[in-house]
Amino acid sequence: MITAEEQREAQAYAVARLDELGIVLTEEERARVEVADFGLGRLRETGLQLLTYMNTERHCAKELVLRPHQTCAEHRHPPFEGTPGKEETFRCRSGVVYLYVEGEPTPHPACTPPPGVYTAFHEIRLEPGGQYTIPPNTLHWFQAGPDGAVVSEFSTASRDELDVFSDPAVTRAPVVGG
Amino acid sequence: MITAEEQREAQAYAVARLDELGIVLTEEERARVEVADFGLGRLRETGLQLLTYMNTERHCAKELVLRPHQTCAEHRHPPFEGTPGKEETFRCRSGVVYLYVEGEPTPHPACTPPPGVYTAFHEIRLEPGGQYTIPPNTLHWFQAGPDGAVVSEFSTASRDELDVFSDPAVTRAPVVGG
Repeated sequence: MITAEEQREAQAYAVARLDELGIVLTEEERARVEVADFGLGRLRETGLQLLTYMNTERHCAKELVLRPHQTCAEHRHPPFEGTPGKEETFRCRSGVVYLYVEGEPTPHPACTPPPGVYTAFHEIRLEPGGQYTIPPNTLHWFQAGPDGAVVSEFSTASRDELDVFSDPAVTRAPVVGG
Repeated sequence: MITAEEQREAQAYAVARLDELGIVLTEEERARVEVADFGLGRLRETGLQLLTYMNTERHCAKELVLRPHQTCAEHRHPPFEGTPGKEETFRCRSGVVYLYVEGEPTPHPACTPPPGVYTAFHEIRLEPGGQYTIPPNTLHWFQAGPDGAVVSEFSTASRDELDVFSDPAVTRAPVVGG
């Protein structure tokens, strides 16, 4: 759904943001930054750039990079293999990210979701140094502020292929790194 | 075992190293950086500065800061509550860290351990961008190179109070943050 050129450009954008933060990456890591458009073909609006440092059967760490106002589509991490599902902590490193989770809707949320299906409107605003832990199987989506955002994600085991998206039009894009 | 002055000085050292890397911390986090001398009273030789971002029942993330040639004493993370014990990934952010784990001893290891009990001599050298996952219940210790080191630790749940040290003289120092 995205062209090779879009992918290369998005990878380069993400690597540049991580470089700016002084986060040292190996050449191998630079080449395998993932670009996800969730199968929608509107990458700059609904999409995500991410680098998975490691992902074992028990723990995982990633860097997430968002363009200005880019949105990661609403989804949840369901139980699997006898676990309650992925539990994840977002820690904002640069920019601002607005995270929306299930719960009491925030009056006048800062973000408008892009076209699609969005049901969670309890807003958490994360500036650099701010963090939030999302329980497993909890619907959430997030959108960067006007300068984009870099977010570190610490979690239990990650199985992106099991993610359940609210919008039936969404397909988790296959890994398009490298 | 360490004075209030030593503690303040070590905290300030760690915060300065994290600031240099552009890692944004909250005021609350700056104040609760932990300083561990493992009960030995030789902090600059055998000790560690650390900040725990979060630690749930399932996942944990920390920043570890080491002074030049400072050593974290040999220990393992035993099974608890039906889990195999803490599994942790070290990712070097700055400086160089030499990690020693159980296994084939490395001929001519780069580091000499300080006085104490050290049995693991399989060496892994981590430069910035390098990482290594230590299985649960595996003996390990680590020492910074001449410029000190900052290491991100991603893991399953952390229970420092359960750590088993090789040296019976070691007691995991109580948290002396803040």
